[in-house]
Order: sequence, then C-alpha cells, then structure tokens
Amino acid sequence: MHTSFHIPTRGQGLYEFTDQVAVWVRGSGLLTLFIRHTSASLLVQENADPEVQTDLRAFFARLVPPTTDPSMRYLTHTYEGPDDMPAHIKAAMMPVSLSIPVIAGRMALGTWQGIYLFEHRDAPQSREVVGHLALSPAKERS
Amino acid sequence: MHTSFHIPTRGQGLYEFTDQVAVWVRGSGLLTLFIRHTSASLLVQENADPEVQTDLRAFFARLVPPTTDPSMRYLTHTYEGPDDMPAHIKAAMMPVSLSIPVIAGRMALGTWQGIYLFEHRDAPQSREVVGHLALSPAKERS
Amino acid sequence: MHTSFHIPTRGQGLYEFTDQVAVWVRGSGLLTLFIRHTSASLLVQENADPEVQTDLRAFFARLVPPTTDPSMRYLTHTYEGPDDMPAHIKAAMMPVSLSIPVIAGRMALGTWQGIYLFEHRDAPQSREVVGHLALSPAKERS
Repeated sequence: MHTSFHIPTRGQGLYEFTDQVAVWVRGSGLLTLFIRHTSASLLVQENADPEVQTDLRAFFARLVPPTTDPSMRYLTHTYEGPDDMPAHIKAAMMPVSLSIPVIAGRMALGTWQGIYLFEHRDAPQSREVVGHLALSPAKERS
Repeated sequence: MHTSFHIPTRGQGLYEFTDQVAVWVRGSGLLTLFIRHTSASLLVQENADPEVQTDLRAFFARLVPPTTDPSMRYLTHTYEGPDDMPAHIKAAMMPVSLSIPVIAGRMALGTWQGIYLFEHRDAPQSREVVGHLALSPAKERS
Repeated sequence: MHTSFHIPTRGQGLYEFTDQVAVWVRGSGLLTLFIRHTSASLLVQENADPEVQTDLRAFFARLVPPTTDPSMRYLTHTYEGPDDMPAHIKAAMMPVSLSIPVIAGRMALGTWQGIYLFEHRDAPQSREVVGHLALSPAKERS
C-alpha cells in the first residue's frame, strides 16, 4: 500500500514528520519513503537536541554555498536563483529514498532517531514524499 | 523479479538510464536499484537542464580532487590511478542503492526527476545495475 | 523476516560485517539493512585493499573535523564531545539504510563489494543494524 505525505517548508532547514509516518504504518514489513523533488532530501537524524538540526543546516550551507559566493563561480546553472544549484548538489549528497523495517506496527527507529525532510531552497515549498509499505506474509514473520 | 541494466560509460559524469528502467517495471510495488561497483553511484536528479549534470560533476571533482592534487597527498590508495580513491570517496557520499515505489506500472518519480549512473572513473567502463521489483499482493493495492 | 546484527566498534573507522549478513540471507528477494544510530553509517565499499578504508576515514575526518578545530567553531552542539556533531554530519552524508537484492541465496554484491559499518565516534560503541529480508513469491522469481 502507498500514500503521500505533504510537508510544507518555509526556507532551508530540517522539518520532522516522524509522527505522520508513524500513524500510517501498521503490521510488519518494509517502509520505503521517496521524495519527489531534486532540491530537498530525506534524513534520519537525532531528534533529541534541536541544535543538531541547526548545525546540520549550517555545515551544508558552508560546504555548498550559494552560487553568488565567489568560490562557486564555476557553476553554470544559476538562472533559478543562487540557492538552486547548491540545492541539487545537497540533494545528491543526502538520501532521496529511505528504507525502514516495520515490526509489529512500529518503525525500527533507534531511540533518538526521527525522520526529517531537509529543505534546500529558500522560498516556501510544498513537498511530497511517497510512502510505500510492503507487508510481510504472515508465515515469514519470524 | 530481477534484471540487470548495463550502462557503458566514457569518463566521469552522469548517464541517464530512466527509460531502460521505465520499460521494465510493471504493476504496483517497489523498485530497487543496486549498483555492483564501488567507483560509481546511482542518483535521482533533475533531467530538465543538462547544466545541472555538468555542475554536479564539477562540484564533486573539486570537493574530491585527484590524488595527484597536493591537497590529497595524505591518501595512500593510489596505485590504481589518481581518479580511483576519489571515486571510492564519491561512491561513499552518493547512493549505492535506490528504492522507488511503482504505482500502476509507473515509477513515482517527480516531474523533473531522472535516474542516473554517476561515473567517477576516467577510463571507459561497463557498469551493471541490478533491478529488483517486488510486486504488491492485489489485496494490498490500496 | 528480520533480525539484528550487533557490531562492536573501537573508534572511528570501517568495520566489515558482510559475512554475518551472508549467512543469514536465503532464497530470493530483497535485503534491507537499517542502522539504529545517528552517529554511524552503513557503506558498501571495496574490500580488496584495506588502504581504501583508511583513506575513507581520513577524507571524512578532514572534510568534517572535530568541533575543537577552529574551522568548526560555528557549530553549537558540542556538549557530547568534539566528535559528536561531526558524527551526525557524516551520518547525514552516508547511508542509514541499504537495499540489496538477494538471488538464489546470495546477495547481488559485485566482486569487490563488502558491507561495512562506518563508526564516526571515538569511544567504543555497540551498534545495532536491523536486517529485513522480503522473500519473493515463487511465481515472481523470473
């Protein structure tokens, strides 16, 4: 079975949507998440301390600065804005899909793991993540 | 069911093979792609403007330069050529596997998403990507 | 069916556990590995030359140095140690999940591919990787 999760974003940063996914999954099997965009990513990251999310955003903003930065002058795809090509680069470095086992109705996340959409664009966006759940046949649930 | 996609490459860069995959998938379920190499990657990226592909190649070539570059002298695995260890590093930073839901015979790709092999070696290669399609049981296709 | 692989680590670096996984898989279908931590990663990498593993560790240690490094002073999440926030950053850049087709009892790994846990913390850890195997129905094994 499949669904779509819709995540509105308001600028670069991490947006958690663990709860939306948690209420949708059931049974035992495999959950797959797939983001239908090339300028945002999916992440499983620590959800205990919000500073981790701030720091992740800060690190990648320095590793891949806007195309207006002198160090990025070699880039050519600039007509969609200074944040666009860096967004594609970050989307290449971080997951477009995630696979998470589901056991007895719960995702097998670790204690501190949450599911995030990492928005790489500055302008507000409406992002779509496709969820797919493949339930295990009863006989395989060992 | 599974298959192999064969992608010939002629130097570093992105090679789209969306169409090869599109004609193979059917039904509804989950598509998995797995690349059987450690010096090339799989990417889902924008297929609208070829400059995006050129810029992706340029960015990663600067982030991970050849081992002949003075900044990379600390690397030790150099006997397979100056492009080999950087290829392994890029292969660690970008996907070895992709999971894409399939709905009614079509991959759930976004409007601008294409599937690429990102070749990290300079010499021509013949790359193999294993495709696996797990069809959903009819009763789960909700 | 699912299981847990337990991998003890003693500092940053790559720890191969291909053999543990190989003896667990069977039949034909799809293997998923998911790491339940946000400061370590999963990698499929070359297992022929151990220098590749040393170089991977060295590259990422320079790309994301400890928070005691002057270049990293902008990071705020530092109270869990100078290796903690860099560990989260590396965990964002490398896979949290891997999907590997299984054909006739064997993972579809390439000749030189091994499965690794990449530990990003300095102190010894006990890491858990969840394995999930979805067997294909007999009729689909074409």
